Amino acid sequence: MFTIISYDIVEDKRRTKVMNLLKGYGTRVQYSVFECELTTQEFATIGKELRTIIDANTDSVRCYRLDADAVQRIAILGIGRVTTDPGYYLI
Amino acid sequence: MFTIISYDIVEDKRRTKVMNLLKGYGTRVQYSVFECELTTQEFATIGKELRTIIDANTDSVRCYRLDADAVQRIAILGIGRVTTDPGYYLI
Repeated sequence: MFTIISYDIVEDKRRTKVMNLLKGYGTRVQYSVFECELTTQEFATIGKELRTIIDANTDSVRCYRLDADAVQRIAILGIGRVTTDPGYYLI
Repeated sequence: MFTIISYDIVEDKRRTKVMNLLKGYGTRVQYSVFECELTTQEFATIGKELRTIIDANTDSVRCYRLDADAVQRIAILGIGRVTTDPGYYLI
């Protein structure tokens, strides 16, 4: 499922770890926002790994899972495009 | 409709303007992410106003509109909660 993951991570080292983790699953579309196409298993794995990285008292990770209709409703102003073409996830 | 608006704005003054605009429509849930409950008209108005603020060559605004099912699928790690209760928009 198309998933947006946005994060506010207080400490640089943890933020880099989160970014590197998510790079393996999708495309960084903004400074702290990734778009990923994830299976249920991948989503569960990411959740587990993120819990080992973040400080739950100070950091914030938000995951939004969109169905096909919601993906069609994505609106972008300025630079950027929607990363729904699977080809974009293989970098 | 429940709408997530995330932004990367290069210049501080423009970023502050975007933040102040969005404050009037929803809740800032992360440094550059807002959650808003918007009518179609409000969404159109925000789009118009954002276009007057941002530099379309350097800045990026992404709008994701979620239906009720997608809102139920929101997952949060660390600090934060989902801002779907209308009461939270009236601050």
